[in-house]
Amino acid sequence: MSMDLTFLGTGSAYPSPHRGASALVLRTDGDCWLFDCGEGTQTQLMKSQLKAGRITKVFITHLHGDHLFGLPGLLCTISLHSCPAPAKPPPPVEVYGPRGLRKFLRVALTLSGSQLMFPYVVHELVPGDDQCPPEGLPDGLEPVHDDDDDDGGGRLHPQEVLGRTFQLDPEQGCYTLLESPQFVVRAFRLFHRLPSFGFVVEERPRPGKLNVQLLKELGIKPGPICGRLKNGESVTLENGVVVSPEDVLEEAVPGRKVCILGDCCSLVGDAGRRLCHGADVLVHEATLEDSLRDKAWEHGHSTPSMAAELAEACQVKQLVLYHFSQRYKPQSLLKEKEDDNVLELKRQAEAALNGGEVILAEDFLTIPIPSKRCS
Amino acid sequence: MSMDLTFLGTGSAYPSPHRGASALVLRTDGDCWLFDCGEGTQTQLMKSQLKAGRITKVFITHLHGDHLFGLPGLLCTISLHSCPAPAKPPPPVEVYGPRGLRKFLRVALTLSGSQLMFPYVVHELVPGDDQCPPEGLPDGLEPVHDDDDDDGGGRLHPQEVLGRTFQLDPEQGCYTLLESPQFVVRAFRLFHRLPSFGFVVEERPRPGKLNVQLLKELGIKPGPICGRLKNGESVTLENGVVVSPEDVLEEAVPGRKVCILGDCCSLVGDAGRRLCHGADVLVHEATLEDSLRDKAWEHGHSTPSMAAELAEACQVKQLVLYHFSQRYKPQSLLKEKEDDNVLELKRQAEAALNGGEVILAEDFLTIPIPSKRCS
Ligand SMILES: [Zn+2]
Ligand SMILES: [Zn+2]
Ligand SMILES: [Zn+2]
Ligand SMILES: [Zn+2]
Repeated sequence: MSMDLTFLGTGSAYPSPHRGASALVLRTDGDCWLFDCGEGTQTQLMKSQLKAGRITKVFITHLHGDHLFGLPGLLCTISLHSCPAPAKPPPPVEVYGPRGLRKFLRVALTLSGSQLMFPYVVHELVPGDDQCPPEGLPDGLEPVHDDDDDDGGGRLHPQEVLGRTFQLDPEQGCYTLLESPQFVVRAFRLFHRLPSFGFVVEERPRPGKLNVQLLKELGIKPGPICGRLKNGESVTLENGVVVSPEDVLEEAVPGRKVCILGDCCSLVGDAGRRLCHGADVLVHEATLEDSLRDKAWEHGHSTPSMAAELAEACQVKQLVLYHFSQRYKPQSLLKEKEDDNVLELKRQAEAALNGGEVILAEDFLTIPIPSKRCS
Repeated sequence: MSMDLTFLGTGSAYPSPHRGASALVLRTDGDCWLFDCGEGTQTQLMKSQLKAGRITKVFITHLHGDHLFGLPGLLCTISLHSCPAPAKPPPPVEVYGPRGLRKFLRVALTLSGSQLMFPYVVHELVPGDDQCPPEGLPDGLEPVHDDDDDDGGGRLHPQEVLGRTFQLDPEQGCYTLLESPQFVVRAFRLFHRLPSFGFVVEERPRPGKLNVQLLKELGIKPGPICGRLKNGESVTLENGVVVSPEDVLEEAVPGRKVCILGDCCSLVGDAGRRLCHGADVLVHEATLEDSLRDKAWEHGHSTPSMAAELAEACQVKQLVLYHFSQRYKPQSLLKEKEDDNVLELKRQAEAALNGGEVILAEDFLTIPIPSKRCS
């Protein structure tokens, strides 16, 4: 299965002509999962090689506008371009994100009179109190969740299917959002000005291939016996020899692991470190350079060395930095000897990572995540 | 006073890389009034010569996403770039638009934890039942306005000042939104899939200048007497002659009139025709070409000849078309002999207008509205 990550927006705080607001797509065999959807994401999608209509799931790390405000428009535009009367009803677009997301989408889509050609469902994560500073939200912005708001407030949008509400699993310290035959998706808690989450997409290991040489030695020809062995069944050959799958199957291929973190200046609890261990790709924000660490911290953001510390602790293979302050121009626009040079962010992460691989994300950069081979 | 119109988005339905979603700015001596704010307007503003921080008023024609979804992000970004501790508290940004706008903005800004560095106020227009088809909104999308929603639903956002609610003036058939020493702004009703409005900005006439030749003949020298005459006061000269202002003032300079209409396939009532009469500029949508009139009508939209009919009836000086279907590429991208040619829209309006001036708006086009001179 092919797998890659495409960045649609790598800027912090707001979209600019040089860096879109946060959005990236994890694509697996044409199926697209969108992580965050800042304003302008639909236009960035049109400029990219990706098709908005292939988006089946959306994950929102937190409710800051630069990660969220593009979502109602994206859903409307996907709908406009979708088949007006599909032969079979399309599956719902599933949206995962912090509590409050359901109400935001419902109000935006309803007040704008937006009909969708497909159902949608919002699954909400209930954050802990320890995910943002107690004084973080000024009076009047603390969330109020009365009974009415439990389902997002008011009536459902006509295309809305009421989603699940995920509470933190107290033992695992995380949220298990999705378990499919191919993937497990979990979320863990981050500390930011608003409750923020990291998402871990873990591909399940794939069973090893049949070893042709070993089959030959046992006198097994291609056919139903091979199928039974591949399915994990033991078989008794005509000569009485019992062959079990492990005798002829090569090593299972470990699944890939992709971790995408929302804005944060630290993790909450130790689940994140555990879940990200050994990740193939860790996507982490680096809003400001190391010398501005205090300012980054004050705004709930990270610097390159903060991101690298996590990557180092988790022994990830690749650290991808994004969510850069708009002061850092993309490499393609850099003039020589320019201050606020985004390449300096890369050097700072590399220095802290003791030689691990660091990638600076840019809008429209695609990073392939190759399938693993057995060693 | 200088006055011009700049188009930030001229596309219909959604923003594309070639045409932004609806937004245009009326600038008067540096003060900017924004009309509609589709997704991506803040980025279009950055690409333009205008400064987002100069926006003091926003007018939303209707709540469709392509006219609205950029507003929360725009306010957040203006705030980010504004002075953190202004010497004197800034005046509120005033937002005018249909009922429901207050709740939309409040929910979007509150759930995204968006603090603003300035107050804002939303003034709502209560539409009539006759502004959209009775079957226009499917079940579940008809607006519900219970007591709770009268002020937009729930608590005010911390920077929100509760705005006014404008009912239709039954005698005038319009809404008088604003009367300042320089301008009167009125709104009138349009028919669309959602209730939509047109806005008329009318500059007040400016008193004429003192006629230097006449003053000389009367023996009046520059000084306080001139000031009193200019202020509309009669004066008695030393020689006993009484001079009244009309004796020495040139003709008053008529004010300019700019009309900006939201999406529509027709007006509701006759106020719009009356208010737009003699306008210097009429900005009117032309989503589809004349041969698609039925389709345009079905979606509550206009074609060039529909726009021209109104311009003709109102004897406007300049008809500006915008809100083009994304199938019509901007002129700068046109290849020869291309179908769906936006220039055809211009020809259709011109043909219907009997020779009047028609302008096709493009993103970033600025149209000067020169001050009038006496004839
Ligand atoms: Zn952010
Ligand atoms: Zn954030
Ligand atoms: Zn529109
Ligand atoms: Zn519309």
